[in-house]
Amino acid sequence: MRYSRTLIPTLKQDPSDAEVVSHKLMVRAGMIRQIARGIYDFLPLGLRVVRKVEDIVRAEMNRAGAQEILMPAICPAELWQESGRWEQYGKELLRMKDRYERDFCFGPTHEEVVTDIVRREIRSYRELPINLYQIQVKFRDELRPRFGLMRGREFIMKDAYSFHADAEDCRREYEHMADTYRRIFQRCGLTTRQVESDTGAIGGRRAHEFQVLADSGEDAIVSCTRCEYAANVEKAEIRPAAAARAAAVAGPFKKVRTPEKRTIEEVGAFLAEPPERFVKTLLYVTSTGDTVAALVRGDHELSETKLRSLLGAEWVVMADAATVERTTGAAVGFAGPVGLGLRCVADHGVRGMSGAVTGANETDHHLVDVDQQRDFPDVEFADLRLARAGDGCPRCDGGVFGGHRGIEVGNIFYLGTKYSAALKATYLDATGQERLIEMGCYGIGVTRTAAAAVEQHHDDQGIIWPLPLAPFHVQVVPVSWTDPRMRQTAEDLYGKLHAAGVEVLLDDREERPGIKFKDADLIGVPLRVTVGAKSLERDCVEFKRRGEKSAQDLPLVDAVDRIAGLVRSELPT
Amino acid sequence: MRYSRTLIPTLKQDPSDAEVVSHKLMVRAGMIRQIARGIYDFLPLGLRVVRKVEDIVRAEMNRAGAQEILMPAICPAELWQESGRWEQYGKELLRMKDRYERDFCFGPTHEEVVTDIVRREIRSYRELPINLYQIQVKFRDELRPRFGLMRGREFIMKDAYSFHADAEDCRREYEHMADTYRRIFQRCGLTTRQVESDTGAIGGRRAHEFQVLADSGEDAIVSCTRCEYAANVEKAEIRPAAAARAAAVAGPFKKVRTPEKRTIEEVGAFLAEPPERFVKTLLYVTSTGDTVAALVRGDHELSETKLRSLLGAEWVVMADAATVERTTGAAVGFAGPVGLGLRCVADHGVRGMSGAVTGANETDHHLVDVDQQRDFPDVEFADLRLARAGDGCPRCDGGVFGGHRGIEVGNIFYLGTKYSAALKATYLDATGQERLIEMGCYGIGVTRTAAAAVEQHHDDQGIIWPLPLAPFHVQVVPVSWTDPRMRQTAEDLYGKLHAAGVEVLLDDREERPGIKFKDADLIGVPLRVTVGAKSLERDCVEFKRRGEKSAQDLPLVDAVDRIAGLVRSELPT
Repeated sequence: MRYSRTLIPTLKQDPSDAEVVSHKLMVRAGMIRQIARGIYDFLPLGLRVVRKVEDIVRAEMNRAGAQEILMPAICPAELWQESGRWEQYGKELLRMKDRYERDFCFGPTHEEVVTDIVRREIRSYRELPINLYQIQVKFRDELRPRFGLMRGREFIMKDAYSFHADAEDCRREYEHMADTYRRIFQRCGLTTRQVESDTGAIGGRRAHEFQVLADSGEDAIVSCTRCEYAANVEKAEIRPAAAARAAAVAGPFKKVRTPEKRTIEEVGAFLAEPPERFVKTLLYVTSTGDTVAALVRGDHELSETKLRSLLGAEWVVMADAATVERTTGAAVGFAGPVGLGLRCVADHGVRGMSGAVTGANETDHHLVDVDQQRDFPDVEFADLRLARAGDGCPRCDGGVFGGHRGIEVGNIFYLGTKYSAALKATYLDATGQERLIEMGCYGIGVTRTAAAAVEQHHDDQGIIWPLPLAPFHVQVVPVSWTDPRMRQTAEDLYGKLHAAGVEVLLDDREERPGIKFKDADLIGVPLRVTVGAKSLERDCVEFKRRGEKSAQDLPLVDAVDRIAGLVRSELPT
Repeated sequence: MRYSRTLIPTLKQDPSDAEVVSHKLMVRAGMIRQIARGIYDFLPLGLRVVRKVEDIVRAEMNRAGAQEILMPAICPAELWQESGRWEQYGKELLRMKDRYERDFCFGPTHEEVVTDIVRREIRSYRELPINLYQIQVKFRDELRPRFGLMRGREFIMKDAYSFHADAEDCRREYEHMADTYRRIFQRCGLTTRQVESDTGAIGGRRAHEFQVLADSGEDAIVSCTRCEYAANVEKAEIRPAAAARAAAVAGPFKKVRTPEKRTIEEVGAFLAEPPERFVKTLLYVTSTGDTVAALVRGDHELSETKLRSLLGAEWVVMADAATVERTTGAAVGFAGPVGLGLRCVADHGVRGMSGAVTGANETDHHLVDVDQQRDFPDVEFADLRLARAGDGCPRCDGGVFGGHRGIEVGNIFYLGTKYSAALKATYLDATGQERLIEMGCYGIGVTRTAAAAVEQHHDDQGIIWPLPLAPFHVQVVPVSWTDPRMRQTAEDLYGKLHAAGVEVLLDDREERPGIKFKDADLIGVPLRVTVGAKSLERDCVEFKRRGEKSAQDLPLVDAVDRIAGLVRSELPT
């Protein structure tokens, strides 16, 4: 395409509301524009990138034997009521009424709709397995949309759903999809890690995320330095360290005044005790209506995911101040396990602590010299904290966790019969018995993948697109458009590269070279051909990869062949 | 693809709610399924057809120099309030509130959003013209969704918007888009007609529709048998016939009792007068709050489009019974122009009528021997009726209209400055003057085009897809899948045709041949290769076009080359 005839409104300044690199650069490169919070226009270059991701996802899903369908964006409430999610989903579900006052929602995922297709059309085990997917615009009414495409409200997603006669076949497809996802992200030119994850609101029994590694990632993940194990810190299993019991405490615990000191840091500074001597006591209310105390060591962080999973609750939420005061008799910040009279669950790190500091269940007071076995023996121990770098790997001997930041771009779930049971999706097995269909589901955030690519591939000057996702493979930049020879050479290259199947952006603007190079760096087309007076004298053009400092001369005579060959060789299929 | 691994749930029976052929056949061929009124799942074969339409539309729009973008489905109310359409649009606009109680709508068209892009990004005449388009899912909350994809609520549309420095350049692009549309529908293999049309709710000053001709079409159109003129009957100009004044009526008009006779047919039968002697008097309320009487000859039909246009009203609606009774003093069915005391507008056909029959403005009474010039001279004459076959063409001498039925699949509008004025989309001209941008907009119903293709191309057995829209080019049908030679030959053809770039559906089911042929006819793949025992003895397969009765032998040795060559030659690019 010709730059002068393409809408590429680049900007010199970062948008004021942008916090992350991909948001800044995609706006500055004229690829996206926000029209309402978390809702974006895709301008020509941005859409080209999105289509590249879509095409790779589609090709690999088809290769994997999945069938593309398209379900509606606007879904009737009845199906969601059948699954129970109409009530459960909360405000992220964009709901509306049609002209006849019937309830609908803008589908954020399509488990119900696809299960409805299958229960209507599939009768026999002979018609299973089947994997149906779509690439579609979704809407989730996020509480805090931000980070550009990373956490938008309207976004494009690939969602696939597989249906099976038994759990074993579903697990086979689960692994097959994991393989397919690895292929997809590899083809996109992205470094990703497959990590164990929580099953979240979609439910089900087994789940992995695919994380694009990037320092700016929202998610914290750990991976073993020795084996393949990797997981979200919310979910990662931790090898319990041996209970590091200190010397027995001489006397009983003592109550000390800690006026206005609420946090571990404040109390620790006040009492001159390090965080690892503290027991943090956090009160939670659960979806089943219980109030529970969760204990972790002062230097550890509670994983709400693990807590929820341990309690078997749909959700857990930190108790509000009124509940804390009513339950502990003290203001927030002074809860402790001794004499609390609530169900207490504790992380393994709390086991056997002695000489510990806890809240006193009395405003402005803490207890010191607390001994877990002596003073609050009635606790249930479990793995309840966030993993962190340095923790021991649960799957191998001697492995320890390294820490990474990542951006979740894909996830796979083994759903079991959660939806087929709710919607009565059954089949007849070989003996004529009616049985529930086993299900898996598999998502990829298409627009999010485009943004994650920017997070992983950029520098101070702009984006450095991996070739498979780039809006164009090559940008041809004549130093001067008014110079007849440069112009003619550039036109010639443009035409021939295009004919050779290379996607080219020709900068045909009458702009200063500095502006053209700056825009080229910002947009991030991976290969650049500069047509300048000096190299033309040598019958050459300059060839440079975005992200590399130095250019090389490319003889005009075989420039097209060499560039086209390079593009072909670097585009995995 | 393999039939046994593809979700193609064909049905023997027409769905009970289906009234039109495309709805019946697309459901029966397992291409679409309804999940709520006017909301459909696209199953694999249906989606393949939709993608074919999209690909052709995209290729031709790109060739025409338009740029693809993607705007959000969920649009903020503020933009619609700026244009005034938030109030005007009525219940077809699906409205909703987000979690923060802000108003949004599911965009049925995107004039406001695209104009917002342009007003933010375009500054100078140098950046014009620009044509931006998208292919996107839309929602219109139709009063009566029906006819399958023909009048669904959620559908896929290509909408393009062009922006220009002046009206002349906008008209040039309008013609360019008309050319592009002709190419698109020709490439789709559809017979269409470009007709003048009303500008409707989108507004603007000039509009054409592209109609797929089909007997089942919802729209009535007329086209001149001598020149190029064609138009929707709502809009078609009619050459006024010379006033066929009958001999002067001897005496004054007379009031006659016509008890319970309300319609032209009833009164005509009762008085033994033909419809063309009647003056039909229809009372309308307009958007400006007026009540107006519209008169047409008894054998003519009023065009509300022409009436609205004449009155310069946003909308007109037939007066309710209470208004009729209050205004005429008579029950519905007895209104007449004589002594009515309302503004009367009349079609040219009423001019100079004598010996006419009209309502008497008295319940159960009509007037006979009415003379227009004598008895109701104070009427404004205009072209107010629907055109019909046999009417004279307004653009050429001696041409008369022929009548057709059509399905509107595309439309083009010259909008002028309607939206740019409302949203203040301006540019600086060469002299530095700020000027309003001129706009055109251009739509194609993608899913509707798929359905219209079925309306135009089918027979009693099923669909007959035009090759460019077919879900597959070729269906390979081995008579028996258990016969090793047939199976091997079919597999071989399948693999080689696929490798030659032909899209093949291999019927690898262990079904009786009758079922396979029936399904093949229903699905409508245009080329069929049957692998049977008899032809294999001659080292041949049978080749048949869907829609033709007889098959021909194709020697196995060059079957692949001939079929691949045929497909290539028949796919316009």
